[in-house]
Amino acid sequence: MAALEYPAPIRQLIWQLKSLPGIGPRSAERLVLWLLSTGATQAPQLADALKALGSSVEMCEACGFYSECGTQCALCSDDRRQRAVVCVVEQAADVLRLERSGAFRGQYHVLGGKLSPLDNVTPEDLRIAPLLHRVRDLPAEEVILALSSDVEGEATANYIADLLRRAEIKVTRLAQGMPAGGGLDHVDEMTLFRALEGRRTI
Amino acid sequence: MAALEYPAPIRQLIWQLKSLPGIGPRSAERLVLWLLSTGATQAPQLADALKALGSSVEMCEACGFYSECGTQCALCSDDRRQRAVVCVVEQAADVLRLERSGAFRGQYHVLGGKLSPLDNVTPEDLRIAPLLHRVRDLPAEEVILALSSDVEGEATANYIADLLRRAEIKVTRLAQGMPAGGGLDHVDEMTLFRALEGRRTI
Repeated sequence: MAALEYPAPIRQLIWQLKSLPGIGPRSAERLVLWLLSTGATQAPQLADALKALGSSVEMCEACGFYSECGTQCALCSDDRRQRAVVCVVEQAADVLRLERSGAFRGQYHVLGGKLSPLDNVTPEDLRIAPLLHRVRDLPAEEVILALSSDVEGEATANYIADLLRRAEIKVTRLAQGMPAGGGLDHVDEMTLFRALEGRRTI
Repeated sequence: MAALEYPAPIRQLIWQLKSLPGIGPRSAERLVLWLLSTGATQAPQLADALKALGSSVEMCEACGFYSECGTQCALCSDDRRQRAVVCVVEQAADVLRLERSGAFRGQYHVLGGKLSPLDNVTPEDLRIAPLLHRVRDLPAEEVILALSSDVEGEATANYIADLLRRAEIKVTRLAQGMPAGGGLDHVDEMTLFRALEGRRTI
């Protein structure tokens, strides 16, 4: 005798939800039952928002951040931002993280990832050639590499720094050191090493 | 100057997702960026599954479990299930939990909640009247109350037991005691009290 299961539409949605990152089979089941319990409104609204995502969001060709189809990119169209400094990040979410810090008012450039030979990510897969064109066209005087400090991030930073120095552009990177508000006990050795190395007179 | 934000369709979907139980603002943002990074396929598929949920799942009028519109309820249409025993549960998800245990092959009846004066849940809000009709029509000899053992669950069980006993139906409830595989150190005092009270000769 076949085991009792939820009707097909419920199983289908559970299957879809549990393929999302951070949602396991039990959370997926709970979400679907919750949606069913809210009646007829919540699920269609969520469906519409998902459809809109696919059809009305595009990547800005210049900076790589997201923009709404048919409108100008909020970053590139803002002429109060400095044009002489470009901050290079791995992904679009990094742009908002830096913006929220309030420390930067220049141009951003989203690479779309980092070099990773193991995952077959080569310079052609990233928006590196567009970066070189953009730096020349703006023109930019300084490029800040705000990439992650793991092996792939460092390799990507070195690769881009090399190309930009050949074009005689100043290349900088984010300082490494202690996180704000954290004590020595919460920091790994490599971070401590870099914090010591980069110590500053007060 | 207004802070930089994601385009409206992205904000809208983040807002929709973070209203779901167990999904906070950061998970919602990560999910949306992940959906964007997967390209054009994943978000519309999820949207379709959500639309189908609203339009093609309904509640079985007899037992209260979910069924696909236009098909018979998998539980009520299965004539190999005992008709003389009805197991009363709070919600549809409980049906599958009990089914997976393999210990029960009778009828289920989903109440749709439990009595809770604080949340304005009265007997009229639950499927109690349909339960009484169903017990008479089947006809059932025994009703198992598989409700949660918190205050509201107990109150609901007592309320229903009262009505059923007046109709001269045998009413039982799930045994309370130690969870399988657990030691004394993992069990609260109330569970231990009930496990002692219900001790059995071996």
